[in-house]
Amino acid sequence: MEGDVRAVAWTGEGLRLIDQTVLPERLELLDVRTVGALVDAIRRLAVRGAPALGVAGAFGVAIALRQAEREGWDGARLDAAIAEIREARPTAVNLAAGVDRVRPFAADGADAVAAEAQALLDEDVRGNRAIGAYGADWILARTGDRPLRVLTHCNAGALATAGWGTALGVVRELHARGRIRTVHVDETRPLLQGARLTAWELERAGVPYLVQADAAAAGAVLRGLVDVAVIGADRIAANGDTANKVGSAGVALACADAGIPFVVAAPWSTVDLTARDGAAIPIEERAEDEVLTWDGARTAPEGARGFNPAFDVTPARLVSALVTETGVLEVSAGTTPNRSTHP
Amino acid sequence: MEGDVRAVAWTGEGLRLIDQTVLPERLELLDVRTVGALVDAIRRLAVRGAPALGVAGAFGVAIALRQAEREGWDGARLDAAIAEIREARPTAVNLAAGVDRVRPFAADGADAVAAEAQALLDEDVRGNRAIGAYGADWILARTGDRPLRVLTHCNAGALATAGWGTALGVVRELHARGRIRTVHVDETRPLLQGARLTAWELERAGVPYLVQADAAAAGAVLRGLVDVAVIGADRIAANGDTANKVGSAGVALACADAGIPFVVAAPWSTVDLTARDGAAIPIEERAEDEVLTWDGARTAPEGARGFNPAFDVTPARLVSALVTETGVLEVSAGTTPNRSTHP
Repeated sequence: MEGDVRAVAWTGEGLRLIDQTVLPERLELLDVRTVGALVDAIRRLAVRGAPALGVAGAFGVAIALRQAEREGWDGARLDAAIAEIREARPTAVNLAAGVDRVRPFAADGADAVAAEAQALLDEDVRGNRAIGAYGADWILARTGDRPLRVLTHCNAGALATAGWGTALGVVRELHARGRIRTVHVDETRPLLQGARLTAWELERAGVPYLVQADAAAAGAVLRGLVDVAVIGADRIAANGDTANKVGSAGVALACADAGIPFVVAAPWSTVDLTARDGAAIPIEERAEDEVLTWDGARTAPEGARGFNPAFDVTPARLVSALVTETGVLEVSAGTTPNRSTHP
Repeated sequence: MEGDVRAVAWTGEGLRLIDQTVLPERLELLDVRTVGALVDAIRRLAVRGAPALGVAGAFGVAIALRQAEREGWDGARLDAAIAEIREARPTAVNLAAGVDRVRPFAADGADAVAAEAQALLDEDVRGNRAIGAYGADWILARTGDRPLRVLTHCNAGALATAGWGTALGVVRELHARGRIRTVHVDETRPLLQGARLTAWELERAGVPYLVQADAAAAGAVLRGLVDVAVIGADRIAANGDTANKVGSAGVALACADAGIPFVVAAPWSTVDLTARDGAAIPIEERAEDEVLTWDGARTAPEGARGFNPAFDVTPARLVSALVTETGVLEVSAGTTPNRSTHP
């Protein structure tokens, strides 16, 4: 049913992206055939979400090879272009991992790279389906028979992945099993990925939902209006500390206080075993204007400065479950990525 | 220095309000001479903040008496108009208290009512100065010599009171003592009282500040970027549970987790000893459109529903200190309003 939501697709000539900056008002496709256009699309979040960035990065190497051929780049120029893609956003480990995965195929040409990138895309969709099933099983084993009120933050859906979604994949699976009563969707300031993208996906999928201010999340949890929170992740440290969209840590604190599960759903590729804990994860700070203006119009007074971290780190002790395509780690209970037997 | 910020003033003929819905873009004054105009101003938050609402409610009775005289209302019509003012917003106890305080003077006419309302206004400003001093003393006794990084949520400043401010009164006092390094201002969705009003006040007062998304608050606290949080209150139950702008409870959870003080600054009139705990405080739900649109333009998809509670309740166990004009109650340590010796 979600065949129509493909945030990232290869046309044979380049990438076709859904421009997520104009949703939900318009469904516009971007045809990307240069490294500059791809880096721009990544930076302005036309394509976003850790797994989607991984796939976009992998196809990006094919784009770079094609452009190098067209424009007669030397090896150094090509390397610089690939590095620029790899580092277009600093927190998401998947972007670099996607680039690195296909790089060994570069010697065989753009088509070989694109084929490997497509394999990554297909794996991502399969992985998301597995995440959805594992996550739904784990949650339902703990919440009993009642229809669930789920809270999610930001967008970890089909738009953030190659399809289906991670956190929203769990929600889709719960909905398919008839177990969703409603989804509390944090609007996710400053860029409103929740109000714009998650709401759009849930609307299309026919899942009942309510959009709320991010600030309403903790109160909703403390008032007993939520049964479980499910979020995605941009990078997960070896000990289970989880970097995700700013605001996630606040949701986790509320869930811990209320005694409800806080579930992180992400592909294993999001785990960075070289990061011992959250302190090793760089936190991207984005432009101040994102919190000082709205749609181009200034909201804060002239002279105001902004603080605009894109992510926060949820301590492992607050993560009830980390759901990946290979199963569930109960992180706060001590089953952390660095102690798991995953490849 | 704050003589120029008077959110609520009596002209002799009616109320002059700063229209807080158009700040910080424009400083516009509203002359209010009818009950209908006052109720409208209260409901659309042209005047807001618990203590300011108390003063506006008190002067509102004088407005009602004047209008009754002009338009030849009978007693029942007058009573209904006063009740309408009293109940224009359900969560703030001060609005009703302001009305109730001046009502005994109604038999003596509008001028007598206005004089009592002016006494309330003057007391509020004096009280805020005392809150600022008590709060600053309490905080500085616990934070040592370093310049402080303070976080605040919503606007509990001169605009929310008769002048100076409660939470921002503490900040102003700390600044006057040379002890503010910066103030993290939560933007406070959906209506942006932080980005618009608190930032405007701090800008005018020359206090360094940073505007941030509400969702950035917990992460900033967990990262050690904040030394103390200070907020206002709309109603405080007998056990110390505190209703304030939605998002406050999340800040409190983060402060408790990080081991930094979470300070509530409010006049004693905000305490409602008839509310045994937070469960007895009604939580106003405002229009869904506030979270589904921006400046008239829709952000969420067609079909979306919103959840828009204006307040949340911070449990007493998370409130390090409740600062009123009579001193400091260390609520989480067990010194709650119902056990205090305050009149």
